[in-house]
Amino acid sequence: MKVIKISIPGFTYDVFIGNVLTKLINYVDFQQEVLVITDENVYNHHFHKLIEVIPIKHVFILSKNPEQDKNILMYEKCVDYALKRVLDRKLTVIAFGGGAVGDFAGFFASTYKRGVRLINLPTTLLAHDSAIGGKTALNVGNVKNAIGTFYQPEVVLYHTPFLKTLPYIEFTNGFGEILKHDLLTNGVLFKMLLNDSFNLEDVLSNQELLDEIIYQGIFVKKFYIERDPYEMKGEREYLNLGHTLGHALERLYNLKHGIAVSIGIGFDLFLSDSSYILPYMETIKKLGILTSGYDLSLELIIDILKNDKKNRNDKLMFIGLKDFGKPFHLELTTKEFTVKFSEFMRLYL
Amino acid sequence: MKVIKISIPGFTYDVFIGNVLTKLINYVDFQQEVLVITDENVYNHHFHKLIEVIPIKHVFILSKNPEQDKNILMYEKCVDYALKRVLDRKLTVIAFGGGAVGDFAGFFASTYKRGVRLINLPTTLLAHDSAIGGKTALNVGNVKNAIGTFYQPEVVLYHTPFLKTLPYIEFTNGFGEILKHDLLTNGVLFKMLLNDSFNLEDVLSNQELLDEIIYQGIFVKKFYIERDPYEMKGEREYLNLGHTLGHALERLYNLKHGIAVSIGIGFDLFLSDSSYILPYMETIKKLGILTSGYDLSLELIIDILKNDKKNRNDKLMFIGLKDFGKPFHLELTTKEFTVKFSEFMRLYL
Repeated sequence: MKVIKISIPGFTYDVFIGNVLTKLINYVDFQQEVLVITDENVYNHHFHKLIEVIPIKHVFILSKNPEQDKNILMYEKCVDYALKRVLDRKLTVIAFGGGAVGDFAGFFASTYKRGVRLINLPTTLLAHDSAIGGKTALNVGNVKNAIGTFYQPEVVLYHTPFLKTLPYIEFTNGFGEILKHDLLTNGVLFKMLLNDSFNLEDVLSNQELLDEIIYQGIFVKKFYIERDPYEMKGEREYLNLGHTLGHALERLYNLKHGIAVSIGIGFDLFLSDSSYILPYMETIKKLGILTSGYDLSLELIIDILKNDKKNRNDKLMFIGLKDFGKPFHLELTTKEFTVKFSEFMRLYL
Repeated sequence: MKVIKISIPGFTYDVFIGNVLTKLINYVDFQQEVLVITDENVYNHHFHKLIEVIPIKHVFILSKNPEQDKNILMYEKCVDYALKRVLDRKLTVIAFGGGAVGDFAGFFASTYKRGVRLINLPTTLLAHDSAIGGKTALNVGNVKNAIGTFYQPEVVLYHTPFLKTLPYIEFTNGFGEILKHDLLTNGVLFKMLLNDSFNLEDVLSNQELLDEIIYQGIFVKKFYIERDPYEMKGEREYLNLGHTLGHALERLYNLKHGIAVSIGIGFDLFLSDSSYILPYMETIKKLGILTSGYDLSLELIIDILKNDKKNRNDKLMFIGLKDFGKPFHLELTTKEFTVKFSEFMRLYL
């Protein structure tokens, strides 16, 4: 088991990684109500393990595609559900699932009765990004994460045995964010991947190694969160490496978040004239991320980019990365984007 | 002009009271977008004064009954409005109106793109309560303030000349909260009101005296906010004096907030066996608050009370007050409430 402590002014919480589900009993007040927010997949696979640890009376279940349910209508349904069950301010919400469930449950917990307790139980590789750092969100129309809050959980329990039931595509998906954290520090994992004999399946079957990789990813994130918990300084925005284009691809073409981000990182490396652009694109292809054959519409992508939260004064904001650990801000006009993205498509997609 | 500084960990902001509208130019970044959220009444009466001070391109207008518009549907419309105009994270929201506008605009500002700048311009006597302290809210179904956030404004500009266009009923309405603050400290204003020669209209025509009364009310509130900014300790809940029953009456019988709270305070005094209960009920009658002739349904009231945010473990929570400045927590079962409220109705309503 590994532990990372996250400290921002006014809040401190632990992130436990490993075989840690039973720790839940230390964080739930059995005198008070508990509401689990999850999705159909996680409910079917893992809910029975949760109720072995604590009794659960209230469960709100999103569909098998929780990213689509992460909207205001579903939020209102969840509020209605809680009000009908007369859940009060002492409620504890458990976010039990992947990133979309975490975003949704976090938004609910931060606003219901002006905020109730939140415990994060991420169940996917990708979810570590949503579960740690206090960002919550809902989509509005086709604007991803258009609304949200900053709201810290009481604890994050990363019970990694849950990851075993994930389909391979979910590992690939999760690797996008992990690779991002790696590139933002020292590129150790990236260099491992460059080695021809490296095999992702070897990592996935070795829980200790997997825990270590997750731990490293969270450790990088801790650094950024603690320096800039509310994304005021622009530094935390570096964690958005790959996300500007990534979000647009995800919304428009129904790509998995981590897969869209992986392609977005490629574009950011390309914008930065990084010498790693070619080996990077080859590496993500090796991980199973399709990098060609997309029928992308420049117009639709630009429409989405215009409403990105990171934009400032009508410029599109990207995160550049020339060398490992050295991110920087990159602003493009839509015209500049058009030129660069057309070139990127021609060369790599 | 008077100033009060509110300081909670991580946030400090000023509340200016008096002829202070022009101070707005010190708080608006003219390089960035500004969105004014207001209601039809305030828009018709005062918007021309606002645009004399700063240029405004974006205005979202609630109806003449903003308390009814303070819901999730209208919130989503406001988000759509902002997204269509491509307003980014550098946006400043100006909450321009009474308490309901403040609650709505505050909730919007705290969640749009995970939070944008907020300036409060309260235009009613009552609004001082919503504008200061960082509580934002929306109603869901018939549960008042079922969702919300804690979110601090950058500044509060209480331009009291706006109050002159208020109908008399709005002063009566506003006096409920002011009287509450007075009772929670030393009862000076209450004792003034007991004097037969006292006349509310004299106060209202004297801006200096009015500013002073508003200042005193905010000063009491500052004390509670700074000690307990997120209502964790239960002390800030004392500011809910009169609000448990008040909220229910407001929702069910369309009473103005301050008027409903005035009656709620009467009930809280009654629950506390205060010797002031009779003079208090006579005083609010003198202020023009109808205290009899209501056709109240105990069942409907209990239905609403059951979903009050302050409830704990199925008990209804009230704030008691025996002597000036000495509030305490009071828990009632619904059965106890039924007995007490029936008696209160028989004696005073």
